[in-house]
Parts: sequence; C-alpha cells; structure tokens
Amino acid sequence: MGAGLVGSLLSLYLAQRGHEVSVFERRADLRKQGLVEGRSINLALSDRGWRALEGVGVGEEIRRVAIPMYRRVMHDQHGNLSYQPYGQDNQAIYSVSRAILNRTLLDLAEQDPRIQLRFNQQCLGVDLRARTLDLRDAQTGTRQTQSFRRLFGTDGAFSAVRAAMQRTDRFDYSQSYLEYGYKELNIEPGPDGAWLLEKNALHIWPRGQYLMIALPNLDGSFNCTLFFPYEGEHSFAALQTPAQVQAFFEAVFPDVVPLMPELQAEFFQNPTGSLVTVRCFPWAFDDDVLLLGDASHAIVPFYGQGMNAGFEDCSVLNELLEEHGADWPAIFGEFQRQRKPDADAMAELALYNFEEMRDRVADPRFLLQKKIESKISAQYPGQWLSLYSQVTFSHIPYAQAWQNGQRQEQIMRRLMPHIQAEADYDRPEVQQQLKAEIVQNHS
Amino acid sequence: MGAGLVGSLLSLYLAQRGHEVSVFERRADLRKQGLVEGRSINLALSDRGWRALEGVGVGEEIRRVAIPMYRRVMHDQHGNLSYQPYGQDNQAIYSVSRAILNRTLLDLAEQDPRIQLRFNQQCLGVDLRARTLDLRDAQTGTRQTQSFRRLFGTDGAFSAVRAAMQRTDRFDYSQSYLEYGYKELNIEPGPDGAWLLEKNALHIWPRGQYLMIALPNLDGSFNCTLFFPYEGEHSFAALQTPAQVQAFFEAVFPDVVPLMPELQAEFFQNPTGSLVTVRCFPWAFDDDVLLLGDASHAIVPFYGQGMNAGFEDCSVLNELLEEHGADWPAIFGEFQRQRKPDADAMAELALYNFEEMRDRVADPRFLLQKKIESKISAQYPGQWLSLYSQVTFSHIPYAQAWQNGQRQEQIMRRLMPHIQAEADYDRPEVQQQLKAEIVQNHS
Repeated sequence: MGAGLVGSLLSLYLAQRGHEVSVFERRADLRKQGLVEGRSINLALSDRGWRALEGVGVGEEIRRVAIPMYRRVMHDQHGNLSYQPYGQDNQAIYSVSRAILNRTLLDLAEQDPRIQLRFNQQCLGVDLRARTLDLRDAQTGTRQTQSFRRLFGTDGAFSAVRAAMQRTDRFDYSQSYLEYGYKELNIEPGPDGAWLLEKNALHIWPRGQYLMIALPNLDGSFNCTLFFPYEGEHSFAALQTPAQVQAFFEAVFPDVVPLMPELQAEFFQNPTGSLVTVRCFPWAFDDDVLLLGDASHAIVPFYGQGMNAGFEDCSVLNELLEEHGADWPAIFGEFQRQRKPDADAMAELALYNFEEMRDRVADPRFLLQKKIESKISAQYPGQWLSLYSQVTFSHIPYAQAWQNGQRQEQIMRRLMPHIQAEADYDRPEVQQQLKAEIVQNHS
Repeated sequence: MGAGLVGSLLSLYLAQRGHEVSVFERRADLRKQGLVEGRSINLALSDRGWRALEGVGVGEEIRRVAIPMYRRVMHDQHGNLSYQPYGQDNQAIYSVSRAILNRTLLDLAEQDPRIQLRFNQQCLGVDLRARTLDLRDAQTGTRQTQSFRRLFGTDGAFSAVRAAMQRTDRFDYSQSYLEYGYKELNIEPGPDGAWLLEKNALHIWPRGQYLMIALPNLDGSFNCTLFFPYEGEHSFAALQTPAQVQAFFEAVFPDVVPLMPELQAEFFQNPTGSLVTVRCFPWAFDDDVLLLGDASHAIVPFYGQGMNAGFEDCSVLNELLEEHGADWPAIFGEFQRQRKPDADAMAELALYNFEEMRDRVADPRFLLQKKIESKISAQYPGQWLSLYSQVTFSHIPYAQAWQNGQRQEQIMRRLMPHIQAEADYDRPEVQQQLKAEIVQNHS
C-alpha cells in the first residue's frame, strides 16, 4: 500500500527476488500530471539513499539529475555569508526533485512484469486477520475487497495500514507535532537559468527561533522553506497581510527579498505544513503485515534523512530476505528488532538538528568547533568521524552514530575551552589532551 | 458519546445546569443484564471521586454500598503480614463495584427529563466540521447520522471521538502499553458471607517484578488482580498448563491458594487485560467537541485514580460552567489548559506507583520511611502531607501534588540515613535537621 518513494523502491526490491507485487496508491499517477519538473519539493539524498537506489540499478540515472551540495552557506541578517563544509573532499549531499525521483522509480516498476501498479486506490481499512484491504477507486467510486498474502505499509506518515494496527492490542503509538509550521517559497532563476545564489550549496538563514533554507533546482531556481512558529511575536499568526510579510522579510532576510518576486503571493497561496514525528511498535503484524518508511517512523526534515531512512529500510529488508530466504517470521521479526532503535535515534537526531540549524550554525564558536572536529578527523582517520558524517556519509546504524556523536560531543566540551582560534589546535597541551581523549574513547 | 462512569456523571452535571443531553452508548444497558452484583470489577473511590458524586447528590447512596479500606496489608511469600495505613484516623479509600456505581448514575440520569439515554449505539465516525455522529444500532443494524451542537467524548481509552480528532492537523497523541498484563481472579466468601481476609483493607502480594492485589466485595468475596509480565521467566507466557499455574501460585502466593478453589479454571477462562497510558492534546475541537476521562487521559490502575481523575474532570468542568456561563470557547479552552498538566502528572504518578506496589512496599526501610513521614505529618500539620494523601485525600491539583511529593522525597533522602528505627525520629539531631528542612521547604 503506497507508491511513494519507499513503496515504489520496495516493489523493485521484492520483484528482484522473484515476488509478484501489486502496488496500490491513493493518489493519481503523478507521471500523468503536468508538474513543472524543476519546481517540485526537493530532498537531500545522501549515502544511505544512494546505496538503496544502486541496489536496484537506478543510481546512475538519478545522479544525472541530482545537484551536489558540498557545504552549508549561512546568510546572516546583513547578508554576510559564512561556510561549513559537509564532509571531506568531494563529499556532498544531493538536491533531487521528489517528483523526478518518484517518476523514475515508477517507470522502472512499470517495466517489471512482476509489478502491477494501481493508482487512485484509497485504503479505507485493513482487516488484518482476514488479510484484506478495503479499497475505494477515487475515479469510479467503486469499492472492492482486495485480499493479500503479505502487505507492506509504505503509505506514509498518515498510513491507513498503521491505523488498522493501532487498534490492535499492545500497539505503542505516538504522533507528536512541533510548534512550528513550514512554508514553501521560491527563488527565481536568473537570466539564462543562472543560479542567483551559490549553486552547489544548501543555504541557511538561521535566526535563533526560526530559519529558512534553500536547495538548488536544475532550472536555476531554488526551493526555499521557511520553518516558523505558529504563534508568538515572530510567527505565522503575526503575519496576516502582504505588507507585514514584505516588511518582515526585508528586516530579517534582506538579501533574499530581491530574489523572490512572488513572495507575497506565495506566502498566502501556499499552505502552511505541519511537522510531525511518528513513533510506533511493533512494525509487524504476525508475518503478514510490515510497516516501512514514514508509516513506521516519520521524522522532522532537519537532518535531511527522512527519505534516506526509508530507503535504508529497503536495503535492510533486502539483506534479511537474502539471509532468511522464505522464513518470513524471522525476516519481519529481525527487521523490526534491528531497525526500531535506529529509527528512534534518527527521530531524536532530526529534532536535535533543528536547534543546530536555526541557532547554533550562526554561532562563531560552533563553527570553530566544527573546524576543529574536521582537523581531528583528518589527524585521526578511522578514529574520529563527525556525527554529521556518520549519519550522512556512512552506513553506521543510526543508533550507534548517535551514541558515538554524544561521546564525541563530551570530548569537545572538555577540549574547546582551551581553543580560542583555529591555530590553537596545534598547541602541545591541546594535542596532548586530545590524544589522551582519543585513546580513552577507544579503550 | 459514552455512558460509562464519566459519561453518565457528566450528563447529570450538564442537565443540572439546564442543558438538554442525549447520551449514546455503544454497549447494551448494563442494568438489563443479569450480573452477579458482588462480583464485578471493583474500583477504589477516594476524595476527588466522592466530591464529584456529591455534586450531583449521589454520595450517600454510593456510600451505603462502599467498603472502606483503611490500610494496605502486605502478604509476603510465607504468608506473613505487614501493614501500612493509607492516611490519618479514619481516612480510607473505598472499594466500590463498577457496575453498581454505573447503574446508580444511569438510574439518576434516566429520572432526569433533560437526559435521553440511547444504548447499543456504536460510533463509526465523527464529522467534526459538519458536527455529526455516524451511529450504528447494534440491535437493528441500521445506521443514522446524528447531528450535535456540542459533543462530549466520554467513550473511554479507545474513544471513537478521539480517533476522529487524531486525524486533525497538529493533534498530539500517544498510546503506550506496559510489558505487563493483568488477570482477574476471585477469593471466595467464607461461611455465611464472611470475609476470609481482613475486610477493610486493600491486600497486596508484592513480588518485585509482579504483584497481586485484592479488594473486598459486599458478599464476602474479594476481587483479585494479578499484574504479571507477558514474557520472561515468571510470566503469562511461562504458565501454559493448569498444573504450572497451581505450582506457581503455591510457591509465591501460598496463603491465598486455599481461598481460590477456581484458580485454575479462572486463570485460563478470564482474558488477559493490557495496561495502556493514553496522552493527547488538544482535548477540544473548537468549542464543539471536548474529551473527558479515559478518552483524553487513560492511565494505568496502580494509584487507584483513573475513575477519580475522570470524575474530577466533571467537577472542574462544572466549576468552569459556573464561572463562564455560556462562553463555551472560554470553558473548553480553560478546561484543557488547566487540566492537561494534572492529567500528565497523574499518568506519571500511576506508573511510579506500580514500582512502589510491586516492589518497595515489601522493603522494611520503605515502610519505616512511611512511618516517619506519618510522624512528620502529625508534628507539622499543614506543612507536610504525604504524596499519597495529597493525591488521595485532597483536592490539590495532581501536578502540584506530584511536585510537592518530589520535594518531600528529596528531604526524606537526606533524613533517612540518620534513622534506623522509629524511635530515632525523636533524637535531637534528627529533629533539628527536620526543622531546618521544613523551614527551607516553605521559604
């Protein structure tokens, strides 16, 4: 159930192992809609996502339409810029259009004779014991009962499959919203499709209690997102007129206002989205039903890991299919046992990074610490990988990355009082303390 | 929606203020079923519950069928007993049959011309914006759309009204289960309806990782509940045969086995219940819908406050109706603002007390500390009320009680190392330290 990013990718993995797959999707086939390609929501694809795409042979095709972002560019209130590289050398996260990605996966699925795609199929209910879906065709209005042998719930944060599981005994569930909403806005392309901000970067306007980000599109535009409180002095509630919006943006995001000619219209036409974290357990109902992706672990977008985590679910499941063959109870059981702590850790990390992006990245001390960490990484390769790199450029399980990151943060708290500038890193007492910490960290 | 304990009591409060009330209940009218009166589940009614009942004039009637329990009686593995009074003097919690209580409230509601009771009405859905209920008559199978002006969701931990609210944007929700289930068992009456254990007490068999409790019934029987892990060495999963059950009970609850002739049959016939905590917010949808009782704050039963908290919801709402007249936005808004922190605190307290009942009450040091606290209470009246008394015998908001209790616990942790026996309480240095603590606690 669900032919979004995770559902369409999963169907390819299942078909690759010889299974017959029917994919039911509530919405219409997005390939038949006239979207402006360059303007859909874009997502940051990183190593976990790439690996999962490469597992079905679609990595190269996506790489051609992905824009590498090598660093964060922070814009302060006066338009001054500061920089933070994401990783070493050529490491980057990639801005990819959600629509292009989904279409590519659906095209692949359609070519596979073992996969049937069925659109406009709203799931009204699931009878877990009878193993049937109650489906309503949105075009004809007809209802049908669809039986299944094994159901994969990849129907997103508001999953209908999960809703059925929520009513079973001992199903732990929570949905928790931030007091922040988001608004999508656009930066127009320059003449001849030129990018009016640095193209190969993720742009951040950190403002303490709120922030805006921008990711590049192929057509020279940028997709911006304002993350903003619902209530309070600076909030959606406080911006009620076009004039108020214009004045606010000119005051706090002055360098971007000239690049947003449609600002006022977009601000009021585009919906305000909410930001939810969903946690639940179990993810499996017997060996009949399994939740993956946002259906079992929707997270806030501040680490750029929502899609990557969902794609990694597919990689992990694929490994278990390899390992356990047709032993579905083992596959489902091991999947949720192994993957739940990682999903929980990633949810925490995403919430943690919200603070980092809206507040800490504007702090020179924070940026200095990141530079020092980068030096440590270079000096102690294999013994120090920044938390960000572990999450973004490695396949270390999220829970372990989070644990490592917390331990490293403790070390930095002891080290940083001795460092006032980048050059202090080379002072003998700093080097000595660092060495002792590294030894201890690995003992 | 819902004619359980909170729903039927609330209808009386609303009618008392002149409102026309229709009450829809999923189940059949329990007054028409041939229950054995003395044997239904019993609940511990305490001061908050009594006040709410007295507000609709039903306190006296219930008091006649309530059995006061003045103390906890702890049974150890050899059948030895120890004691812990609940409060001062004649303070008690009261064992009351849920069925008798619900029947009495329904009888009262039925006599009120402003209240219409409708049973066998299953709520299949709520259209919050259209203000309609989708009801199915369980007897005739017919469905009808029932419009409402204002809807009170008192339909319990698995509330259908709340399920509709859960699908609205920014609705925070969690349901969280313990790894423990419960099993109802019975202690038979003695000859001539005599009570075979001390009548006016709540009996506890604390066993560290699990426990059993017993509350007295009017007919001389006791209603027992075993709270027991689902999995593990001592667990429901480990007791698969009547012989295993018998051997286990004889080993760990030897004094009670002779009083339970139906033990083996009951253990396998009675269902294993699960233990859920439900938290959500908001509780109101505009000024149209409000959740009360278990629908908004279901808790585990270990403080005996689930029903009392739901009844207190009715008292609080009644006060707000008094204060704000027909200003429903103010009433609903203030109700949830005021009551949510108390419900959250009570949920924490209930989980906290699980540990106390299954483990700490078996510890002589814990019982000594409780005796000392009781002495402090007597010496400093008005300045020291035990946490248990605040929750059970006062109307101090739960959140404040919990805060006070945590502060007192800190004091006891500093005091108890100086106390090895009850008599030590009178030692000058103990008295001096106590006095200093009390002064500081109130400064």
